[in-house]
Amino acid sequence: MGMHQYIKSLSDLENIYRCPGKFKYQEHSVASHSFKVTQIAQFLGTVEEQAGEKIDWRSLYEKALNHDYTELFIGDIKTPVKYATPTLRAMLADVEESMTENFVHKEIPAPFQAIYLERLKEGKDETLEGQILSVSDKVDLLYESFGEIQKGNPESVFTEIYEESLTTILAFKHLASVQYFLEKVLPELLNETFTNQGALQKITADLIAKA
Amino acid sequence: MGMHQYIKSLSDLENIYRCPGKFKYQEHSVASHSFKVTQIAQFLGTVEEQAGEKIDWRSLYEKALNHDYTELFIGDIKTPVKYATPTLRAMLADVEESMTENFVHKEIPAPFQAIYLERLKEGKDETLEGQILSVSDKVDLLYESFGEIQKGNPESVFTEIYEESLTTILAFKHLASVQYFLEKVLPELLNETFTNQGALQKITADLIAKA
Amino acid sequence: MGMHQYIKSLSDLENIYRCPGKFKYQEHSVASHSFKVTQIAQFLGTVEEQAGEKIDWRSLYEKALNHDYTELFIGDIKTPVKYATPTLRAMLADVEESMTENFVHKEIPAPFQAIYLERLKEGKDETLEGQILSVSDKVDLLYESFGEIQKGNPESVFTEIYEESLTTILAFKHLASVQYFLEKVLPELLNETFTNQGALQKITADLIAKA
Amino acid sequence: MGMHQYIKSLSDLENIYRCPGKFKYQEHSVASHSFKVTQIAQFLGTVEEQAGEKIDWRSLYEKALNHDYTELFIGDIKTPVKYATPTLRAMLADVEESMTENFVHKEIPAPFQAIYLERLKEGKDETLEGQILSVSDKVDLLYESFGEIQKGNPESVFTEIYEESLTTILAFKHLASVQYFLEKVLPELLNETFTNQGALQKITADLIAKA
Amino acid sequence: MGMHQYIKSLSDLENIYRCPGKFKYQEHSVASHSFKVTQIAQFLGTVEEQAGEKIDWRSLYEKALNHDYTELFIGDIKTPVKYATPTLRAMLADVEESMTENFVHKEIPAPFQAIYLERLKEGKDETLEGQILSVSDKVDLLYESFGEIQKGNPESVFTEIYEESLTTILAFKHLASVQYFLEKVLPELLNETFTNQGALQKITADLIAKA
Amino acid sequence: MGMHQYIKSLSDLENIYRCPGKFKYQEHSVASHSFKVTQIAQFLGTVEEQAGEKIDWRSLYEKALNHDYTELFIGDIKTPVKYATPTLRAMLADVEESMTENFVHKEIPAPFQAIYLERLKEGKDETLEGQILSVSDKVDLLYESFGEIQKGNPESVFTEIYEESLTTILAFKHLASVQYFLEKVLPELLNETFTNQGALQKITADLIAKA
Repeated sequence: MGMHQYIKSLSDLENIYRCPGKFKYQEHSVASHSFKVTQIAQFLGTVEEQAGEKIDWRSLYEKALNHDYTELFIGDIKTPVKYATPTLRAMLADVEESMTENFVHKEIPAPFQAIYLERLKEGKDETLEGQILSVSDKVDLLYESFGEIQKGNPESVFTEIYEESLTTILAFKHLASVQYFLEKVLPELLNETFTNQGALQKITADLIAKA
Repeated sequence: MGMHQYIKSLSDLENIYRCPGKFKYQEHSVASHSFKVTQIAQFLGTVEEQAGEKIDWRSLYEKALNHDYTELFIGDIKTPVKYATPTLRAMLADVEESMTENFVHKEIPAPFQAIYLERLKEGKDETLEGQILSVSDKVDLLYESFGEIQKGNPESVFTEIYEESLTTILAFKHLASVQYFLEKVLPELLNETFTNQGALQKITADLIAKA
Repeated sequence: MGMHQYIKSLSDLENIYRCPGKFKYQEHSVASHSFKVTQIAQFLGTVEEQAGEKIDWRSLYEKALNHDYTELFIGDIKTPVKYATPTLRAMLADVEESMTENFVHKEIPAPFQAIYLERLKEGKDETLEGQILSVSDKVDLLYESFGEIQKGNPESVFTEIYEESLTTILAFKHLASVQYFLEKVLPELLNETFTNQGALQKITADLIAKA
Repeated sequence: MGMHQYIKSLSDLENIYRCPGKFKYQEHSVASHSFKVTQIAQFLGTVEEQAGEKIDWRSLYEKALNHDYTELFIGDIKTPVKYATPTLRAMLADVEESMTENFVHKEIPAPFQAIYLERLKEGKDETLEGQILSVSDKVDLLYESFGEIQKGNPESVFTEIYEESLTTILAFKHLASVQYFLEKVLPELLNETFTNQGALQKITADLIAKA
Repeated sequence: MGMHQYIKSLSDLENIYRCPGKFKYQEHSVASHSFKVTQIAQFLGTVEEQAGEKIDWRSLYEKALNHDYTELFIGDIKTPVKYATPTLRAMLADVEESMTENFVHKEIPAPFQAIYLERLKEGKDETLEGQILSVSDKVDLLYESFGEIQKGNPESVFTEIYEESLTTILAFKHLASVQYFLEKVLPELLNETFTNQGALQKITADLIAKA
Repeated sequence: MGMHQYIKSLSDLENIYRCPGKFKYQEHSVASHSFKVTQIAQFLGTVEEQAGEKIDWRSLYEKALNHDYTELFIGDIKTPVKYATPTLRAMLADVEESMTENFVHKEIPAPFQAIYLERLKEGKDETLEGQILSVSDKVDLLYESFGEIQKGNPESVFTEIYEESLTTILAFKHLASVQYFLEKVLPELLNETFTNQGALQKITADLIAKA
């Protein structure tokens, strides 16, 4: 089996929706999310570069583009399950790794196997590109939750997602691109007109103060 | 927090879709699936009763109606992940159990906690009602896959789901209701007009012969 | 023709939507509604049992699960048409009954006809189980309308549905389960954050005072 | 209350779907159907005119455009219910008429009430324009069912709808526009490539021979 | 090729959505929009007639019904592109005209070509019927944008569409039907309950004062 | 205005669908398409690299990721309109260029304007990366059309899209990655089981023979 199955499988990512059962105003497929994360990583990488950092662009694009492909064969395990105990988390990581290997050996032609093993493995490592991916993934999630909050979705889960995303982003506040996001992007978002503007501004200020 | 959150959460099950990214012609929510499984269990129970078995109807309806409610807080872990190793499977079962307990203690008022712990625990046990649930769950899955096959969906995954469902049903062939399903229901399904009728009839005959 | 057509028809209930053209934020199929009503009946039955009532669980589950199946061949006649005159209402009830009989004789195998005639007939009778069904049907409708109100749907029709549902529920206020709903569930619902909270609280208080 | 409610209500017709639960490949709203029926009536009227008939265009457009507006407050009563007995049918027709009158008196400003009473009453009368409406309504239904058949929907209900539509159209075969449809349009439709072409051609030939 | 392709193509207009990517609460197909514009034109024509004007009803219905059919083969060119320069606008108008001619010659049988050339050409001319079409097209767009504003869509683009629609309508304020719309319909719309009522009332008053 | 509007606008690309009104089985948003094209470009670039070519990965990812962003403010002009005359085509290209410049100056902060002008300009140039983008865009379109053909969509437009895509791909047959696609990927696609397999294989063989 050659690359035909891989190319065809990209379309399946158009049909897997994130946080099923949560979004009421706009749903987001894994394919769309991957596009947006790659766009955001492209922008954050640009900020880093202007701040004097050296970006390995090939690595950055590759990490962002492929970071959720394995959802196709692993599925979407809820975070509280995944993180229930350290042992369980380690075992699940092992299973994911060995399932990715199986997938690559079964679905990718031999000349490309090493390359796709690299592309499909967990990309959120300690490199600058890995860190930008971690931030980009959460910036998109923050915008997805904001999209619901702004349209008036009263479910508290979106405030929780907003908080959780911002908390992760703040863990990378040593990055120039995160500083830029906090100083130039987030204030614009919070200045949009929406009903609970004050509440969200307070949550944001508190989280930033604590970080 | 009282039963309001529980009643409200039923609506979230209308928005969680089964096998995300697979069904092209008709998608099935967890709420709809639960309705259909309970209807099928109602019918299979009737067959058992006519064959002289004693059915605990309260238990049967309860098992069928509630059997997928925990997907709300556990998520949908792909079967190959779940069954990767016996240790992992046992650990995941433990996590599901303790998460269900947490959920019940947090979301269900005290006078109903014992009852809902019972209702939300794994229902596919060795009792006749537990066995009928196992069969009903797979009969609905078999019909869901047949719905795609009949409409001409060429993806082989639906033939695989059909086979897997029938294999599980056949594991319960000692039940009068399974005998009825094999003799009276399945032949009608296979006599519907559709393109790959011959192929599906052969798969079915082979599986029944082997069982 | 055997039970194959019946099982297959369950899927058609996934495609019939309630109050077509009204819900803007979340639509509800007849299959999903039947699931939710059965869940609610399960809970209200539990409350009755704890209050010392004897519940015929088989009957309660059966009534709730099957109560809207006949929409498949009768359709959705708007309430004002149905109740235009007492004569018309009686004639429509007769037509529904004879169509249900025709359906059972045509689609259900002989050994199960008597059972399904019972299951598909109007379940909202004077028994405790029939009364719980009447209440459960309206509790789900009340939650469906509340879902729209909470998300900010400004159409007055949802306030009207809320009022009409609550009015019917209050007609059964002699039931312990309705007392529980009014004292423990409804206040939680009204304490959720949403724009017109005050208006809905007032409507509710007025209706309860009048009941 | 003035015409604002009427104009706003047009949008509700975009959300009411025809034959709910039946169409798998493409659903059709009442608004879209009304547009297509008016387009088809426009064409059939043109054929009549070229055949020397005098068309009252104002009446024809008015009948076609408004013919399903009352579904908004009457709902969709299944044909077998509607036609169960002649008495029931007459009573339902009376109810529809008096509900239309109520609607007009309540929702349409006085200067336009007489005009809208005329526009919203049953348009399928004995006039040439009324007959063209009857035919146009069924031509669109025939195309809707053909859309499913051509895409491979195996449900026999669409063949039944095709037959029923063609039967009604043939009842108007004295019209030049129906002759044109049978001689010039239908053969093109039947020459499209699709799996059951032969079967549909035979059904068509048989119905035409019998007519 | 005869009229079969034309009748079949009507269904494609059910799948083309207006302002793709903008509407969050309710999308509108070109088919639905054409239905609503024809209904609105029917009403505005009635007002003109009561004001003593002579309406060519055949022309009015024809213009409204067919005014967006050519989107099928021209596509949806964004307004700023269309109006970038007068030369570009003229060239695009020429291209549309010659593509419409090509379409008619290729898809419409000879006896109907002259009639459909007339039906498919730009209908917004200087005649009273052409002016009513211009107004009706914008009244529907105004209601589409209001639908989003009333449901709480915070995107400023809908206020801009509302303003732009009203501005075009005001350019025809010499018409009795526009006077009626401004005096009797618009105030009812602005009296509906919605969050930004005051802002929209002010925008409206300012535009009317300036007109 | 800073990058907030740009990040937020990515979500609008999730709501713009390609070839509106055509796809019946699966629709594709511009966001999803951009993801798939970037994935395909990633693979074709890998083939080129293994064939000894030097790939500028940053440029390749950038071209693929951003190639349809401008659809947000330009819209979707049908190809026959775009290519009606050479003069019109040149004028439209000028308009697109100046609108992109306006967009960048209005929506992108000054420090990033030069970079985004480069990112948003037409990427299909004579460089190897530009050629890979041209091929990747058509490979995705070919898969999109194949998705409909395989599921049995009888509309000839998908065969036409398949042919047109393959023709453009063949124009780049001097590329090693196109050779790989023709020899290793396309035969796998044509060996899938579907009804019109023979017809599509013949079309493909004819086009390759002619190329």
